[in-house]
Amino acid sequence: MGFKILAKMINYWRRDDNQVIDMKIGICDTTFARYDMASAAVDEIKQHIGNLKIIRRTVPGVKDLPVACKKLIEEEGCEMVMALGMPGPEKIDKICAHEASTGLIQAQLMTNTHILEVFVHEDEGKDEKDLKFLADNRAREHAQNLVKMIFKPDKLKKEAGTGMREGHPDKGPL
Amino acid sequence: MGFKILAKMINYWRRDDNQVIDMKIGICDTTFARYDMASAAVDEIKQHIGNLKIIRRTVPGVKDLPVACKKLIEEEGCEMVMALGMPGPEKIDKICAHEASTGLIQAQLMTNTHILEVFVHEDEGKDEKDLKFLADNRAREHAQNLVKMIFKPDKLKKEAGTGMREGHPDKGPL
Amino acid sequence: MGFKILAKMINYWRRDDNQVIDMKIGICDTTFARYDMASAAVDEIKQHIGNLKIIRRTVPGVKDLPVACKKLIEEEGCEMVMALGMPGPEKIDKICAHEASTGLIQAQLMTNTHILEVFVHEDEGKDEKDLKFLADNRAREHAQNLVKMIFKPDKLKKEAGTGMREGHPDKGPL
Amino acid sequence: MGFKILAKMINYWRRDDNQVIDMKIGICDTTFARYDMASAAVDEIKQHIGNLKIIRRTVPGVKDLPVACKKLIEEEGCEMVMALGMPGPEKIDKICAHEASTGLIQAQLMTNTHILEVFVHEDEGKDEKDLKFLADNRAREHAQNLVKMIFKPDKLKKEAGTGMREGHPDKGPL
Amino acid sequence: MGFKILAKMINYWRRDDNQVIDMKIGICDTTFARYDMASAAVDEIKQHIGNLKIIRRTVPGVKDLPVACKKLIEEEGCEMVMALGMPGPEKIDKICAHEASTGLIQAQLMTNTHILEVFVHEDEGKDEKDLKFLADNRAREHAQNLVKMIFKPDKLKKEAGTGMREGHPDKGPL
Repeated sequence: MGFKILAKMINYWRRDDNQVIDMKIGICDTTFARYDMASAAVDEIKQHIGNLKIIRRTVPGVKDLPVACKKLIEEEGCEMVMALGMPGPEKIDKICAHEASTGLIQAQLMTNTHILEVFVHEDEGKDEKDLKFLADNRAREHAQNLVKMIFKPDKLKKEAGTGMREGHPDKGPL
Repeated sequence: MGFKILAKMINYWRRDDNQVIDMKIGICDTTFARYDMASAAVDEIKQHIGNLKIIRRTVPGVKDLPVACKKLIEEEGCEMVMALGMPGPEKIDKICAHEASTGLIQAQLMTNTHILEVFVHEDEGKDEKDLKFLADNRAREHAQNLVKMIFKPDKLKKEAGTGMREGHPDKGPL
Repeated sequence: MGFKILAKMINYWRRDDNQVIDMKIGICDTTFARYDMASAAVDEIKQHIGNLKIIRRTVPGVKDLPVACKKLIEEEGCEMVMALGMPGPEKIDKICAHEASTGLIQAQLMTNTHILEVFVHEDEGKDEKDLKFLADNRAREHAQNLVKMIFKPDKLKKEAGTGMREGHPDKGPL
Repeated sequence: MGFKILAKMINYWRRDDNQVIDMKIGICDTTFARYDMASAAVDEIKQHIGNLKIIRRTVPGVKDLPVACKKLIEEEGCEMVMALGMPGPEKIDKICAHEASTGLIQAQLMTNTHILEVFVHEDEGKDEKDLKFLADNRAREHAQNLVKMIFKPDKLKKEAGTGMREGHPDKGPL
Repeated sequence: MGFKILAKMINYWRRDDNQVIDMKIGICDTTFARYDMASAAVDEIKQHIGNLKIIRRTVPGVKDLPVACKKLIEEEGCEMVMALGMPGPEKIDKICAHEASTGLIQAQLMTNTHILEVFVHEDEGKDEKDLKFLADNRAREHAQNLVKMIFKPDKLKKEAGTGMREGHPDKGPL
C-alpha cells in the first residue's frame, strides 16, 4: 500500500500545482489473446480524456493478470486498471478464466481499487470476424465504463438497472 | 479499518449530541441488471426508517460489486451494505455470479461487516413481467432484512428456522 | 483479534476468581432454514455443560453466516461457534452452500477458531418428517462434537478413523 | 506467527544445547474417516526418525482440518503437518473435499508451512479391503514424503518428474 | 516480506558492487509429474541468461506447489518463480489442478511476485511420446516467457493479442 499512497500523494501535489489531471490508469493484456484489445481500449480512453497517463503491461495468459494488475496498483500507483483477456474455447480454458476472475476480485479487495475485467471467450463469436468485432467493441465499451467510473459516476447511476451489455447490443430494462 | 472506525466514532458522537440516528447504509447495484432494484430497496428502507443516510454506487456488473461494497464500508463508513445484481441466464453468467458471491463473502470477512447479497437470476422468472415482480419483491424483502439486522435482531431470532424466502412465498417450517 | 484476546483475558480472570467455567460459545443460524436447529443444539449443549455462556445470532441465509460467525468470535469473544443452515434442493442452492462453506473455512483461518458447520440439505430427507428428524439429530450430534472438542479432546482421538456420521447412523471402521 | 517463531527459537536453542533434533510435527485426522490413517502415518515416521515430537489432533470431518492444522503450526509450533481424511463417495462429499483442500492450501500460504494433504476417497477402493489397504499405504507413503521434505530434500529432487504415486503403484516417467 | 526485501537489498548491493546480475529465480516441480520439466526449463533459461541464480525445489504433487513457491519468494529471495506440474487424467486430478492454480494465484497476490504456472495435463497428449514432447516444449516456452518478463518486457508487449500458445503451435491473431 505504501507505494500506492506515495504515488497518490505525488499525483495530488502535481494536481494542485499544475491544475492538470494526471491520474494513472493501468492496462494489462495477454499474448494468448488473438486480438489487441488493449490498443482498442487505450484508443477509446484517449478519445474521452486526453491527459490520462496510461501504463501498459503484457503477460502470457489470463492467470498472470491478477498479480500484474495488483503490481500496477501498488508499485506504479494506478488508480484504476483494465484486465483484458481472451480465454480459449475448451473446458480447461473456462476453468483458467474462472481462476483468473477469482484472482482479479481478490486483487481488488486487497487494494480497494477497481480492476475492470474485459474477457472475451473464443467461442463467443459466430466466426473469427464476429469474434474480432466483439473483442474490439467490448474493450471500447468497458473503456467507456472506466471513464464513467472515474469522471462521471452520476451517469452510471442513471444507467442502473437498464440492462447494459458490453460488446453485445444492450438488453434494456424489463 | 481506520476510515470505518473514524466514521463510527463520528456517528456515535453525533448520536449522543443530537439524539438522531445517522448511521450510513450503502446500496450498490449494476448497469447490467434489467430492473432498478436499488430504488426499490431504498424506498422500502425509507418506509421503515426515516433518517438513515444512504450512499448509492452503480458499477457495470456483479463482479465489480465486491470491491465497490468494500469501499463503501472502508472509505465511506457504511455500517451495512446491500449488493444488488441480476446475473444473466447463460452458464458463463452463473460462473460470474459465483465469483461475485465468493468475493462478497470475502469482503465481509475482511471488514467484519454484513453485505446483503440480493441477486435475481434472469432465468428465475416465468416471463419478463414475473421477473420484474420477483426483482422488486426480493429487493424489498432483503431491505426489510437489513432493517431487522440493524434495529430488530430479536425479530430475526424469532424467525429462525421458519423457512423464510425473499422474493418467493415463504416455505414455512417443517 | 484485539477483542478476542481481551475477552479471553477477562474469561481467564473470572475463572481464577470464581472457579467457574464461563467460556462463551456462539450459535448462528438462518431464517431460511425450515427447522430450528439452533434450539436443538443449545438444548444438547446444556445437557452436557451447564454454565456455558451461549450467544445466539440469526441471519437470513447461509451466505450471511461466515461474517456473522467471525463477528461472534472477534467482537463477542466466542471461543467456538456453530453455524447451522439448511440449503435448498436446487442447483443454485448447492452453489450457495459451497460459497458459505468456503467462507466459513476462511473465517476459521482468519481467527484460528473452530466454526462447526452444521448444514442439512433440503433434499437429504426422504420426506419432511425424515428431514426434520435428520436436522434435529445432526444439530445435536455436532453439539456433542463441540463439547468434545472443548472439554474431551481425548475422546475424539479415540474415535479417530471410526466412520462417525452426524445425523445418519455411523458407518463404522473398515 | 509469534507463537511459531517463539517455538522455533526454543527448538533451535535446545538443539544447540542437547544435540537432539526435537522438531515438532503435527498429525491431524477425522472421526469421519473409516480407517485410522494417523496411526499408520505415526508408525511410519517413527520407523525413520526416532526423536521427532508428534502432536496429534482429531476433528469431526475434513472441513475442520484447515484451522486445526493452522493451530498446530501457530499455537503448537509444528514445523510440518499431515492432514488425513477420507471423504465419502457422494457428490456432496466431493465438494466438501474440495473446500477442505482449498482451505488447506490457504492455511499453508498464511503460515509458510507445508501441510501434506492425505485424502483417500471412499470410492477409490474396489471393496472395503482394498480401500483399507490403500488408506494405510497412502498414509505411509506420504509420511515418507514428509520425512524426505524435512531431512532429505535432495532425494525428492532426484525423484522429480518420475511419476510417483502415493497409495497406488508408481506410474513412472514417460 | 521481510526476508524478500532483505534479499533484494543484498542483490542490489551486489549488483552495484560487481556489475553482475545475480537475480534469483525459483523453479519448483513435483515427483508426481512423469517428465522432468524443471530440467528443460533450467536448460532453456541458461541458454538465454548465463549468470542467473536458480534455486530448485521438488514437492510431491501440484497442491504442494503454492506454499513451496511462496517460500522460494519470501525465504529465499526469488524474484520470479516457475511452478511445473503434470496433473493426472481423472476428474479428481482436474480438481487438484484447479485447487493448485487457485493457490498459485493467491501466493502471487500475497507476494506481488509472478509465479509462472506450467501445467501439462496427462490427457493433453495423443500418446506418451506426444505428451513428453509437449511437456518439454511447454516448459521451454514458458522459460522464454520468464526471460522476457524480466529482461524484455517490450518484446512481450509486441506479442500482445497475437494468439501465442505454449507447447502447442501458436494460434495467431484473428
